[in-house]
Amino acid sequence: MNFSIEEAIEVLERSPLTFETLLTGLSPGWLHTNEGRDTWNAAQVIDHLAEAERTNWIPRIRTILESGTDQPFPDFDRFAHLKQDPDQPISEKLARFKTLRAQNLVTLKEWIQPDTDLDQTGTHPAFGEVKLRELIATWAVHDLTHIAQIVRVMAEYYRREVGPWEQYLGVLKNSR
Amino acid sequence: MNFSIEEAIEVLERSPLTFETLLTGLSPGWLHTNEGRDTWNAAQVIDHLAEAERTNWIPRIRTILESGTDQPFPDFDRFAHLKQDPDQPISEKLARFKTLRAQNLVTLKEWIQPDTDLDQTGTHPAFGEVKLRELIATWAVHDLTHIAQIVRVMAEYYRREVGPWEQYLGVLKNSR
Repeated sequence: MNFSIEEAIEVLERSPLTFETLLTGLSPGWLHTNEGRDTWNAAQVIDHLAEAERTNWIPRIRTILESGTDQPFPDFDRFAHLKQDPDQPISEKLARFKTLRAQNLVTLKEWIQPDTDLDQTGTHPAFGEVKLRELIATWAVHDLTHIAQIVRVMAEYYRREVGPWEQYLGVLKNSR
Repeated sequence: MNFSIEEAIEVLERSPLTFETLLTGLSPGWLHTNEGRDTWNAAQVIDHLAEAERTNWIPRIRTILESGTDQPFPDFDRFAHLKQDPDQPISEKLARFKTLRAQNLVTLKEWIQPDTDLDQTGTHPAFGEVKLRELIATWAVHDLTHIAQIVRVMAEYYRREVGPWEQYLGVLKNSR
């Protein structure tokens, strides 16, 4: 087993700063580009991450700790963030995500006793029984997925600019 | 055309800090994991980026500016970084990359007159004629490729930890 809650938190606590470092001050070209119809730009990804902080991870953890498998996870709308203001500066979107994440990590550390809680289970609406440790591991990998997404979307902005090097650049080959 | 040298530099100047934020202080589990035999861990990716600063981008730019297409690009050994000390702390590897990148961006700004130089051409050993603007765009996208690689490698460490969520997490589906 590679999972430990301390190592998961290492990723979770770095992500807001990683997005901030990568994105703050970039020109609109980098920030507004996407991968075509119904795909997300960098700003929309940050809104999605903030929404998930608000309505996904902590509510699911609470459900596991309070109700176990008796009650399925509350709904999470994976498109709710598309209702956020697209013209809000990216710096404000990043700050919102950072604040929510910091609060949630405090909650996580308060709520969870790693020795006894990590094997507790809940009911995922599609998967059925899942473990708390899997949910927390997913939270961390979900951050990594969206870092990968943002750099892939940014690379798309330069697909036609790199000329023949396109074939050498792995990020231009990954599927969405 | 999406390319401008100013926007390419925006990415190039952020990358060292992005890697630093993402990687500094992570546990060995995250830093030493790779994707199997003959694949790179995060530390090796940083060594590769530093090597490319030393022997790839600037020497190629110099060749274009000094010799045009008359002289092919100098050799770049894509595996030279594997000779770097694997036990050197990641913080030192990151600092080396950061210093080399900062020096190279000074050089880039000194050498290049965007109005006249970007369409100058050189000879790539495999592709033949390439433009300076394509080389600089590639430099930026090469950073993005390796950010994507590092988060993909890190995600691999948790592939078995996320349980049924594996199918939802795009970063676990991308090919190397």
